Amino acid sequence: MPKVTYKDLGVSPDKPEVEAAISGLNKGLFPNAFCHITPDILASDTNYCNLMHADGVGTKSTIALLMHRETGRLDVFESLAQDSVVMNMDDLLCVGAVGPMLVSNTVGRNAKVFDRSMLRHLIKGYNIFGNKLTEYGASLQFCGGETADLGDVVRSVVIDSTVTTRMERNKVIDAGSIRAGLVIVGLASFGKATYEVSENSGIGTNGFTLVRHELLSPEYRELGSDCFDPDLEMRAFTGRYHLSDILPNALDTTIGDALLSPTRTYYPIVKRLLDEGKVKIFAMFHNTGGGVTKCLKFGRNIRYVKDNLFDMPPIFRLVCDAGGVSPREALRVLNLGQRFEIVCNPCDAEYVIEISELFGVAAKIIGHTEVAENAELSVEFAGETHRFFR
Amino acid sequence: MPKVTYKDLGVSPDKPEVEAAISGLNKGLFPNAFCHITPDILASDTNYCNLMHADGVGTKSTIALLMHRETGRLDVFESLAQDSVVMNMDDLLCVGAVGPMLVSNTVGRNAKVFDRSMLRHLIKGYNIFGNKLTEYGASLQFCGGETADLGDVVRSVVIDSTVTTRMERNKVIDAGSIRAGLVIVGLASFGKATYEVSENSGIGTNGFTLVRHELLSPEYRELGSDCFDPDLEMRAFTGRYHLSDILPNALDTTIGDALLSPTRTYYPIVKRLLDEGKVKIFAMFHNTGGGVTKCLKFGRNIRYVKDNLFDMPPIFRLVCDAGGVSPREALRVLNLGQRFEIVCNPCDAEYVIEISELFGVAAKIIGHTEVAENAELSVEFAGETHRFFR
Repeated sequence: MPKVTYKDLGVSPDKPEVEAAISGLNKGLFPNAFCHITPDILASDTNYCNLMHADGVGTKSTIALLMHRETGRLDVFESLAQDSVVMNMDDLLCVGAVGPMLVSNTVGRNAKVFDRSMLRHLIKGYNIFGNKLTEYGASLQFCGGETADLGDVVRSVVIDSTVTTRMERNKVIDAGSIRAGLVIVGLASFGKATYEVSENSGIGTNGFTLVRHELLSPEYRELGSDCFDPDLEMRAFTGRYHLSDILPNALDTTIGDALLSPTRTYYPIVKRLLDEGKVKIFAMFHNTGGGVTKCLKFGRNIRYVKDNLFDMPPIFRLVCDAGGVSPREALRVLNLGQRFEIVCNPCDAEYVIEISELFGVAAKIIGHTEVAENAELSVEFAGETHRFFR
Repeated sequence: MPKVTYKDLGVSPDKPEVEAAISGLNKGLFPNAFCHITPDILASDTNYCNLMHADGVGTKSTIALLMHRETGRLDVFESLAQDSVVMNMDDLLCVGAVGPMLVSNTVGRNAKVFDRSMLRHLIKGYNIFGNKLTEYGASLQFCGGETADLGDVVRSVVIDSTVTTRMERNKVIDAGSIRAGLVIVGLASFGKATYEVSENSGIGTNGFTLVRHELLSPEYRELGSDCFDPDLEMRAFTGRYHLSDILPNALDTTIGDALLSPTRTYYPIVKRLLDEGKVKIFAMFHNTGGGVTKCLKFGRNIRYVKDNLFDMPPIFRLVCDAGGVSPREALRVLNLGQRFEIVCNPCDAEYVIEISELFGVAAKIIGHTEVAENAELSVEFAGETHRFFR
């Protein structure tokens, strides 16, 4: 069977088109940082800066719909709120933004598909997540948003959030300043953090177009006739699994629950590290679109060497083994077990790991940085060395 | 022929479901104001407040796609950026927010339908609009956003923007404080403002699901097979017009151009009035979803009497005459010529009108406020009195 790629399914993991479209835009105060950073136009203080960040749950929403259709569960929509917020929040963490955050959302729905009760649970999810994080020093102010009935445009539902925050300029962590001789500490996307209520599959909110179609059975073309692009035809739902199947190598977890696992935030860990200030952090990477290769967008004259990745959690093993996804494609699309990376001096790694584990999140040195002519990445994975260039 | 309603097409103009879903949310500092207003969590100044607002172009994007398919024009995507920003900005104007604004967007696209060049023109549109408004004292900082490839969820493209701003609390205009004995000055949605490059049809960015299906010919079911919900079947594109047809009663304007007319901002006018401070403004209403009845959401023990609406501009006449839209439905969905209303003392109306006309925007007293038991609205329209209750 030919290996399927994300691009076959109408998705470009590296977003070259988007990057080209926005290439003329002002790059902000820190052009090489993980997030766009603007001067403090809100309060006109030259010591501060503003950040506004947008992202959403992508096609994960369709898994929630299918799960609801099979089980009647409505809580699946609550966790989409967390997914949607964390996709923003944890990008913002990467530049060191841990202060109060304004959150709003945009929901574009087909009202026949995404109904009032689902919407209510989604909105409830924003509050649940915001309240939970308050215990860890976060301040999320949910400002409402816009729910639009767009059945002519949307088959099911698009759920995006936007987060605005403000921080001191001298606290910005600029990934552009990364250098050789550092270590990359990977923070696990799987397991159960002390601030989570159940085991996390690690899947996050990326790669869902690939994962859904590779894993789920063609039977879902009927139950989910509004959950795929009809142009995909026989490429839609080509797998052999049902959401209610037990995930291989994972006791008591269904594939559906694993896919809908709420995206973990690393806020409590990063907040603690930044507040303490004991460790100098050179860069942080949130492995969303781009997966394990995300770091490659940052830094100059640097080679990232990742030679000690976490063993793949079961959901990723399933995608790579049962699905037709090549190792190289998997690296480019999925976090494969490490969704957050902290780059620091070798002598500080132990402390970073200690704090992460304090919150129940496994962590270890997964790689290091070397001098190189350009920017490149070398990853040991699936018994091979995979090299990527910017 | 039975009169069609917005609800038949899967859209609820009053959004009762959405209101129910968010009813448990914190209503902010000014629960009765036009926008949600939160404490200044960004800069912790009790004299200030924060506003974050989200909205988008809804199904107007599909008209741009159809127009592009017929004419090859790409500039149609530039003006969607203006639509998307003004839908936020002019809501924010209603509470008196005219300070610097951060803008970001979320684009959920089917990459096969909304391609790279369209995206580039959309992004360009944000810059063009931001630069133009700079001349009128606005400061819009575009922070980028998120473009996601979501072909499984989106037939064509969803374009939303989010705007964040900050203002002094004592400058907030709280529509909740509206009272009897005031006049409602309507600002025209049509004509050509001094800051516009061409004649504006007045349509704005609302009511497009209704307008499209009532006006456009069934032939568009083929050219726009991805521009409507297949569940609508024979209710999709039931009109008799083509985008290239000349709009009746309007020289030299096609129906396509009229529909794609960029949503006018009233920023220059409101900014001038607020900066001068000569006039006390009790409330401002941006007639988006809810159309002419928008005001009904605000105030207590008040009757809004609108007995002097503008003559309907040609695009609305076409919708009401040729389309199957009842007068009552039209009032609930469309601005019908007045997209912005300023409520002030009778003695100040003349000055408000003068400033508006200074910017080339026709204005006049379209109604007044009276004491009532509850909140109600009475509108003279199409030879009848239409009454609405909250």
